[in-house]
Amino acid sequence: MDNKSLVSIDDYTKEEILEVLARAAEFEKNPNCNLLEGKVIASLFFEPSTRTRLSFETAISRMGGRIVGFTDSSSSSVTKGETLKDTTKMVSNYCDLIVMRHPIEGSARYASEVSDVPVINAGDGANQHPTQTMLDLYSIMKTQGTLENLNIFMVGDLKYGRTVHSLLMALSHFNPTFHFIAPPELEIPRGYKIFMDKNDIKYFEHTEFDDIINDADILYMTRVQKERFVDPLEYEKVKNVYILKNNMLANTKDNLKILHPLPRVNEIAVDVDTNPKAYYFQQALNGVYARQAIIAKALNL
Amino acid sequence: MDNKSLVSIDDYTKEEILEVLARAAEFEKNPNCNLLEGKVIASLFFEPSTRTRLSFETAISRMGGRIVGFTDSSSSSVTKGETLKDTTKMVSNYCDLIVMRHPIEGSARYASEVSDVPVINAGDGANQHPTQTMLDLYSIMKTQGTLENLNIFMVGDLKYGRTVHSLLMALSHFNPTFHFIAPPELEIPRGYKIFMDKNDIKYFEHTEFDDIINDADILYMTRVQKERFVDPLEYEKVKNVYILKNNMLANTKDNLKILHPLPRVNEIAVDVDTNPKAYYFQQALNGVYARQAIIAKALNL
Amino acid sequence: MDNKSLVSIDDYTKEEILEVLARAAEFEKNPNCNLLEGKVIASLFFEPSTRTRLSFETAISRMGGRIVGFTDSSSSSVTKGETLKDTTKMVSNYCDLIVMRHPIEGSARYASEVSDVPVINAGDGANQHPTQTMLDLYSIMKTQGTLENLNIFMVGDLKYGRTVHSLLMALSHFNPTFHFIAPPELEIPRGYKIFMDKNDIKYFEHTEFDDIINDADILYMTRVQKERFVDPLEYEKVKNVYILKNNMLANTKDNLKILHPLPRVNEIAVDVDTNPKAYYFQQALNGVYARQAIIAKALNL
Repeated sequence: MDNKSLVSIDDYTKEEILEVLARAAEFEKNPNCNLLEGKVIASLFFEPSTRTRLSFETAISRMGGRIVGFTDSSSSSVTKGETLKDTTKMVSNYCDLIVMRHPIEGSARYASEVSDVPVINAGDGANQHPTQTMLDLYSIMKTQGTLENLNIFMVGDLKYGRTVHSLLMALSHFNPTFHFIAPPELEIPRGYKIFMDKNDIKYFEHTEFDDIINDADILYMTRVQKERFVDPLEYEKVKNVYILKNNMLANTKDNLKILHPLPRVNEIAVDVDTNPKAYYFQQALNGVYARQAIIAKALNL
Repeated sequence: MDNKSLVSIDDYTKEEILEVLARAAEFEKNPNCNLLEGKVIASLFFEPSTRTRLSFETAISRMGGRIVGFTDSSSSSVTKGETLKDTTKMVSNYCDLIVMRHPIEGSARYASEVSDVPVINAGDGANQHPTQTMLDLYSIMKTQGTLENLNIFMVGDLKYGRTVHSLLMALSHFNPTFHFIAPPELEIPRGYKIFMDKNDIKYFEHTEFDDIINDADILYMTRVQKERFVDPLEYEKVKNVYILKNNMLANTKDNLKILHPLPRVNEIAVDVDTNPKAYYFQQALNGVYARQAIIAKALNL
Repeated sequence: MDNKSLVSIDDYTKEEILEVLARAAEFEKNPNCNLLEGKVIASLFFEPSTRTRLSFETAISRMGGRIVGFTDSSSSSVTKGETLKDTTKMVSNYCDLIVMRHPIEGSARYASEVSDVPVINAGDGANQHPTQTMLDLYSIMKTQGTLENLNIFMVGDLKYGRTVHSLLMALSHFNPTFHFIAPPELEIPRGYKIFMDKNDIKYFEHTEFDDIINDADILYMTRVQKERFVDPLEYEKVKNVYILKNNMLANTKDNLKILHPLPRVNEIAVDVDTNPKAYYFQQALNGVYARQAIIAKALNL
């Protein structure tokens, strides 16, 4: 049997992405089931993350599974100097599946290699967060009816935002046109541009956040975090520039949906929340269904 | 469908109070059931509270429900600057009911207004703690056979004690006679006296804690907390005055029961514990049944 | 009904040890069951312990039970000054069984005396950790086919290691020959030597960790912790002496198994992990089955 871990969104082929999204749609119709009856899932959060953890734990609970684990490393053996390998081997003996969030890049891959059971990466530092990508894709598919040929606008911190990078890679299967809106300090990294060039993916870069979004099918907002700037003055210059306000949506397309991985701080004004194009809260809910499908696939259920 | 949230004890009419107490008595007979099968309850404790949390989680578990959540805000997105509104909207998308403890007064009401599912207030700062009131009422009803026409003595911190205030409001439906025993610094606030005057509720104030309790049906003890005093010397003067000792119970009524919201520090001497009139540990257990009934009502089950 | 608590390994007779081990073997064959359906187990960890907690919670989950509790005392009422007695009495009202880890020696015994439900000691300071002992015994029984007449080698911190002391006491029922390998600072305490002398138990003491292990059936490794040494220089002298390396196993017996209570830091070199004689990860898994059997016995199921 091959390893069913999901560490990076690249672990899924285009076909597997579509298969999991179809499965998520089934879970949305019937979220409660007994697929995980008799199964124990380890939820190992070496750093806190309410949203992702609650979403996973809700998914597992609705499937009838049991959860053991920890919510931050202060209550784990890590404080006694245990290696990630030993913790993983120990836990993989107990349980049927591991969901892991860890601050160190590459930790999820390493864990998947020493574990006897599948590992689902719930975020490893700035590296990967593939289940977020799957819920983003599911939200796009559900609201647009397709993943193909869409105008995708990404706004904010495109340099460090792992959700942006993974979504870019995943959408590259589906002939997108990307528009990147970011300050120069936070523009999309060169490696991704080379990747898009090589794969004939159309993309445009902007520093202004204005009526160019009228052409968007999806507007993917992210936080511009102060701690990403070496010079605090640079942050002060841009911090209020990449904020979405309701009046900016007046001439946007009817099918436009606004996504955000959440938590949002102030990059989307509160008056947007009641606009029917705002979709970020439903997007968070979609995370439960996407994760149910990912868990089912990992366990071959 | 009307909002079934329980934020303040005033959200229940007299009839609803009696209905929930009757339901609690049924749960006491058969605590284990499947009423919450397939339901996911969010237990959001923005500040720690073992007793209330364990009581709720036991109630939910005995009803077959699943629990997701956090036990203090350090492991929540709050640390990333997320607003209570966003956290609540997100979680209310996931789950069927929210149980929330929050340090800020008014937070539970606000959450109930933005949530798509009912919210049960498990304590919002010094403001309200309605499920505590319901378990207090259930304990009184169970031990006295009625809530009507009782002599209720309240002792200790009557100024800041939210359990005292809510119980006072709830009992006002049932023609009580109140006796308040407290140091002047911690006497019952003027607003409650005005309320009782307007509603023809008999009450008496005392600063001495002595044989006046011989007339009591219920003796409701609370902690006198050092941090409530502006002047530490004032605290030193009263700290040992409002302590219940076993010999003080010699001439009290046979039907007297001693209640305390717990945790107790030293305001009830340990030698009282074995007196049959001590009821605070059973009272805590009653919290499970009262909360089962409150949850069932909130979900219309 | 007698108190079914397990506070110290001495609470079990030889017959009870064997009965629980036999039951553990049954749970290993069929770990998933409904024995705890409708039961709520309190998991009270006054200090963090991932391994023990996850093992217990997995055991309970696989038996269909529900868990309430806390993972460290910061989220408990202890911070409000509540006594262990009150916390225990409160929780024992709610639940069917208490699993307790507490930093203070003797706390588990005290809790078992005030609790209305059985208490299982999951470690009380340096004192007792009887469920660890039962999983150690189960691992020995499973790999050697018997507990009788074995050559047991114990290595490392034999002075403070509670797992060593409890295992010594438990194995004394089964005619063992002990070999103790430790620096003089950490040798087995005199009280245990007197006990062995009185009970005609053969034992040998060594300070060198060398080919004397070729005679071992069981090699029980423990950590040498820096904080145990008054003089840091003494620690520096011995810290690399009691490390097991793969080449040391070349001439050991075929039936030898290496145990370790985990977490391991560096006292077993990583190259040992793939040696078939390494058994510490399976040993940890055995903890789930041993704890299932212990819980079943405590609840008379």
